[in-house]
Amino acid sequence: MSRLFMFEKPLGMRDTLPDLYETKSRVRTEIGEEMKKWGYQFIETPTLEYYETIGAASAILDQQLFKLLDQQGHTLVLRPDMTAPIARVAASKLLQEDLPLRLAYSANVYRAQQREGGRPAEFEQIGVECIADETISADAEVIALMISTLTAAGLNNFQISVGHIGFVQQLFLQILGTEERANALTKFLYEKNYVGYREHVKNLALSSIDKQRLLEFLKLRGGEEVIEWALKIIENEQGKEAILQLKQLWDIVVDYGEESRLKFDLTLVSHMSYYTGILFEVYADQVGFPIGNGGRYNFLLQKFGKDTAATGFALRLDRLLEALGQIEKTAPTHCIIFSEERRQEAFKVAKEKRAKGIRTVLQDINGVKNVDACTSQYEDIVYLIGKAGRGQA
Amino acid sequence: MSRLFMFEKPLGMRDTLPDLYETKSRVRTEIGEEMKKWGYQFIETPTLEYYETIGAASAILDQQLFKLLDQQGHTLVLRPDMTAPIARVAASKLLQEDLPLRLAYSANVYRAQQREGGRPAEFEQIGVECIADETISADAEVIALMISTLTAAGLNNFQISVGHIGFVQQLFLQILGTEERANALTKFLYEKNYVGYREHVKNLALSSIDKQRLLEFLKLRGGEEVIEWALKIIENEQGKEAILQLKQLWDIVVDYGEESRLKFDLTLVSHMSYYTGILFEVYADQVGFPIGNGGRYNFLLQKFGKDTAATGFALRLDRLLEALGQIEKTAPTHCIIFSEERRQEAFKVAKEKRAKGIRTVLQDINGVKNVDACTSQYEDIVYLIGKAGRGQA
Repeated sequence: MSRLFMFEKPLGMRDTLPDLYETKSRVRTEIGEEMKKWGYQFIETPTLEYYETIGAASAILDQQLFKLLDQQGHTLVLRPDMTAPIARVAASKLLQEDLPLRLAYSANVYRAQQREGGRPAEFEQIGVECIADETISADAEVIALMISTLTAAGLNNFQISVGHIGFVQQLFLQILGTEERANALTKFLYEKNYVGYREHVKNLALSSIDKQRLLEFLKLRGGEEVIEWALKIIENEQGKEAILQLKQLWDIVVDYGEESRLKFDLTLVSHMSYYTGILFEVYADQVGFPIGNGGRYNFLLQKFGKDTAATGFALRLDRLLEALGQIEKTAPTHCIIFSEERRQEAFKVAKEKRAKGIRTVLQDINGVKNVDACTSQYEDIVYLIGKAGRGQA
Repeated sequence: MSRLFMFEKPLGMRDTLPDLYETKSRVRTEIGEEMKKWGYQFIETPTLEYYETIGAASAILDQQLFKLLDQQGHTLVLRPDMTAPIARVAASKLLQEDLPLRLAYSANVYRAQQREGGRPAEFEQIGVECIADETISADAEVIALMISTLTAAGLNNFQISVGHIGFVQQLFLQILGTEERANALTKFLYEKNYVGYREHVKNLALSSIDKQRLLEFLKLRGGEEVIEWALKIIENEQGKEAILQLKQLWDIVVDYGEESRLKFDLTLVSHMSYYTGILFEVYADQVGFPIGNGGRYNFLLQKFGKDTAATGFALRLDRLLEALGQIEKTAPTHCIIFSEERRQEAFKVAKEKRAKGIRTVLQDINGVKNVDACTSQYEDIVYLIGKAGRGQA
């Protein structure tokens, strides 16, 4: 192969070396154990799915999909998220009489990147989906579980922003009249471009009262008090209903004792277009992107033939590790260097150490060119070389 | 989407549902812990690699590769095995002064399938690579470790067939004279088509003595005694050296106390074309295919610019689970069904149960349409509904 390519990986693809691997494993296990304690069951779905099934149902932009053709000429995609595949499995195999179903996953997802040095094109998500439970208790549960998993993973400084996509849609529709105009304004929220939002609002052909409401809307961030402010701005019933759902959510999270983690941000919208109700993002100190997000998606399962509500969240393991900061060193390892004469003895000593849980390398002296460099890697070295002399075991 | 595709997955792609998932996790963890105890360090490599780097270095047939084009026009492949990616990482990042390097992985690999109902196109391999150690001790170590991991996973009835690709090559070359003729005969061994092999040998233009040797070769299967028989058949030095390596391997495995697991099968060859020396397969009772295989590949790292020896093995998790037979039920789960009035109490009880490690579902009664069907899934149900009466907590 050409030297150019010898060590190269495709754009956005990364290797995970031992120290990071162990930290990642530990965090994944701690989160997974917490999810299982809350009664969530893990499943796995294939890396490749039909474009027509999963590519179309997912909310990821077409240009971010890795696509290929199978030998029958169908277009396949590397799964860009796990919510759509889980919806497929739930609808086809697991849902019984619409009983609430609690599923979990930890899996790599794939999003093609355009630029060098940018975001990863493959990253691991750990998440849950709570399916066929329409209550706000289910929304609160996934938020409380997310808090619990992050705490189990050792993260302390994090905050959850909660919004309601239905509220934004109702407010904008009510004031702007058409979906097209509502979408144009929503785009500024996606981009968190509030200067652009204000400019846009100023130039709209609206009464000064309506403009004022759209500008006041941007201030709907904070604690429980936001509920009252929002009820003053919204007029139609569906919009009010959205706010009452948030009030109910708040009360339940108070019962979980986790309200200090929560703040309302009613300007929150998502690039995941399937959300229909309460949605949220979790931020950690010193990480620029959300380390996780989630929300209610009551129509996705319809695409798989089931008229069933659902809510869930996904954490990004890479960003969570960044938030945790410290990469642990792998556990200390002992080394036994042996020659043929004392091989049997070396194997016995290794077996004993390993039985005690000590990581132990067995190294034939003939396999090492530089013994000093070799031994410097290990916490403890035992030499079992040449004939055993008096006094040696 | 069309109903045709709604629930479909691409050819050879599978979902893993909760019970199988938990069994798979347990087995993966037990094997991984054993590998770590032997001083092997886990790494992860990307799912997608350049075709020019990994597709070309792997030993998988081109038609079995999943290929796609990236946005820069390069051909990518879904990794068809882990040995080539590990060689890339070792050569580019981890090898220091040719110090022995012990790496492990558990990862899905991808091989396109041609027919419906056939083999999986995505399956998990768990394996190790012992790099930069040329000694037969390293070959013996990976075999002993494989035995140890299988035992840790709970498998009892398994047997390892050990051969030497160098011996086969030398014997065939010596008798048949050209590589082309040697390869034609080797093909029957790949296919384990011994009737075809015998027919082919009978029709060769060879002395009756040489024909006899090629037929005797087929009998080179069994215990230590095979060493003596093989030395009688082979004449050239490199072929004899191969047999002496097997003798040395036997002695080391005896020191591990694991010789009862081993039998020689000198007719063993592999579809993995990079093997250069000792190679092996592991079979479990009642599973038609090997559950794992491995061997020495002393030239693969040259493709990544390092003239370094290596050996390793890979287990197929799907086949190992088939060999283990029993899929465990997921751990028992309790359920607390609550209404708003006693929500706080329900959360408290759930927290206590979870702290004891009991999997506990919290279910709002309003989220359940059929309470009987819902509760029948759980080991234990607590109802916390309506106002707490006297005597209730």
